[in-house]
Amino acid sequence: MFEFQVTSREPGGQARCGLLTTPHGTVRTPAFMPVGTRAAVKGAWPGQVRDSGADILLGNTYHLAQRPGAEVIAELGGLHRFMGWNGPILTDSGGYQVFSLAALREISDDGVTFRSHIDGQWIPLTPESATAIQNRLGADIIMALDECPPGQADHDTAAVAVRRTVEWARRCRQAHSRTDQAMFGIVQGGIYADLRLECAARLQELGFPGYAVGGLSVGEPHETMVEVLRTVVPALPPDRPRYLMGVGMPRDILEAVRAGVDMFDCVLPTRNARNAYAFTPAGGLRLRNEKYRRDPDPLEPGCPCPTCRGFSRAYIRHLFTVGEMLGPMLLTVHNLWFFQRFMARLRDLIPTGSWATMLAEFPAAGAAGACRDPTGGNLA
Amino acid sequence: MFEFQVTSREPGGQARCGLLTTPHGTVRTPAFMPVGTRAAVKGAWPGQVRDSGADILLGNTYHLAQRPGAEVIAELGGLHRFMGWNGPILTDSGGYQVFSLAALREISDDGVTFRSHIDGQWIPLTPESATAIQNRLGADIIMALDECPPGQADHDTAAVAVRRTVEWARRCRQAHSRTDQAMFGIVQGGIYADLRLECAARLQELGFPGYAVGGLSVGEPHETMVEVLRTVVPALPPDRPRYLMGVGMPRDILEAVRAGVDMFDCVLPTRNARNAYAFTPAGGLRLRNEKYRRDPDPLEPGCPCPTCRGFSRAYIRHLFTVGEMLGPMLLTVHNLWFFQRFMARLRDLIPTGSWATMLAEFPAAGAAGACRDPTGGNLA
Repeated sequence: MFEFQVTSREPGGQARCGLLTTPHGTVRTPAFMPVGTRAAVKGAWPGQVRDSGADILLGNTYHLAQRPGAEVIAELGGLHRFMGWNGPILTDSGGYQVFSLAALREISDDGVTFRSHIDGQWIPLTPESATAIQNRLGADIIMALDECPPGQADHDTAAVAVRRTVEWARRCRQAHSRTDQAMFGIVQGGIYADLRLECAARLQELGFPGYAVGGLSVGEPHETMVEVLRTVVPALPPDRPRYLMGVGMPRDILEAVRAGVDMFDCVLPTRNARNAYAFTPAGGLRLRNEKYRRDPDPLEPGCPCPTCRGFSRAYIRHLFTVGEMLGPMLLTVHNLWFFQRFMARLRDLIPTGSWATMLAEFPAAGAAGACRDPTGGNLA
Repeated sequence: MFEFQVTSREPGGQARCGLLTTPHGTVRTPAFMPVGTRAAVKGAWPGQVRDSGADILLGNTYHLAQRPGAEVIAELGGLHRFMGWNGPILTDSGGYQVFSLAALREISDDGVTFRSHIDGQWIPLTPESATAIQNRLGADIIMALDECPPGQADHDTAAVAVRRTVEWARRCRQAHSRTDQAMFGIVQGGIYADLRLECAARLQELGFPGYAVGGLSVGEPHETMVEVLRTVVPALPPDRPRYLMGVGMPRDILEAVRAGVDMFDCVLPTRNARNAYAFTPAGGLRLRNEKYRRDPDPLEPGCPCPTCRGFSRAYIRHLFTVGEMLGPMLLTVHNLWFFQRFMARLRDLIPTGSWATMLAEFPAAGAAGACRDPTGGNLA
């Protein structure tokens, strides 16, 4: 029911293309997964997400378990049917959100107790419950519960998290009951090569159909992230998909692909769209800018997306100026297309290793600081 | 370039079907125009509006003249191109909004000076400027500037408004310069039959390619509105389209069609969608209601719209509960389809006069108080 086939490789390098078969369809890798946190990709219909070229979505267990609840989703036929997306879905374990969004009461070897940011209730989350919730949601790929220490964690803290992550992965694997869901293990270890390698080795002893790298893109410099990937990815089994969680910017994705990563997810295309930021190969456009007031060009001349085929920068600026929800809707679709076009071009070029072509076509993916978060950085 | 052809009539009644030809396409009447106040139908892509069956949209001159400005829209190729809608468009004159949204400084025979609700500037609006702005926007159908007295205006106040409306209509007609735009006159006169008939007669002396009925659906009882229509519509030329402005609820539309009205516009499908209200033939659904939490049915079983084909009430309720913008987006599309299906069925049945069939299929259109505004009323 699950199969991962590497279909081509970068000559003399680590990048590879593949096909990941799931019960709901095949994912072309390297793949970018748009994020549908609360069973919806914000601002886009499922058909529009599909049309952008996305093969697979991500849903967030933490949010879905609270509202509407895993039981409700299960009763309504599972997450695919609930949200009207019949392609592959991956759910995370909820761990990252517990550690980043919720107030923690207690973290122990048994699990973690957190206070919901919705209703203030204290909720226990254990490897067993995280797995059971994901079993109910019914995604094609589910994630083992991991401990996510802060990005600046010292070696001792990171070591404790690795130990616990491995033990929780073992319990998750044991608790996992559905054969139509593949469970991935998550490699933690912060920025410490020894811990990353230890975690990767221990997880492989357990044996997972895929491996994720967690705890990156949490504030460390781009170069540090790349260095960690170059250490840990070669230590993962070459015949299993590798998923870099929560990444990211085109530049990060490009380097991660070159390090051998196959899967990504990030809220950037959708979140930035709602902040009036359009991704383009040369960098970002902030559509609230007065300079676009009379600009008849599409966001990105030549872009085949429905937004660029139908609307001008001036129109989109107008929509944001007056607060029309169609503004975020149009930018969301463009940004989704942008990320999928970026991935498609990567897949085209991996067999040739033509990174110079990639950077010529997407110069922002090679520029430090270009195309960063709209709250700061160096934009076009 | 403009032609109105009555293609069928209700046996022994006033209702009729027609085809209104404009430079951007043909409108099947009776027609419902979704409202794109600020050059966007809130929550829907133009293609989705088209797919719902809408032939023609309405844009609001008052809003567009302020942001982004008629000059900007003209420079960008006119309203059709600006908003990505290549079908027919009608713009109002801005008069209604001046009288309802803005602070008025002065109203005289020359025109009106109002304070913008956007930036507080005092702006003069005259028949000539209202026409010039609409000429720049470039809609297929434009409206003469009228004076809109309050709904409860007494006979004297309404009489002054009629006199001014007729004089302004004359000046608008004179100022109108584009041959690819048809200008409609607006019949005022409040609830007073003598004034309505006088206004209709005076406007016909000027001669317009179409006539609107303004100043209804402003708080008067349904029966009063119908009574006014039964008085004024027969006094309008049968070979010209008749447009009832700002209406409305299915029940109001049904009775207006029976009185011989051809065109309608209203924000209800889109505004109610954003308030979690779905129109159905039997009445409205308030999707925030707890009772839909586990409801696997579509909004309206059998409805062919993309929302009903893809999503359950439970899912839509979830989207509103968590504040996902996809909730309003899905309801907007359903409500747009509902109104177009309602109009299409009216057009089907007019040649037969089978109003009993219409009411059997859309029972809410016959029930007083059913399907009212979501802020109150008797809902399913």
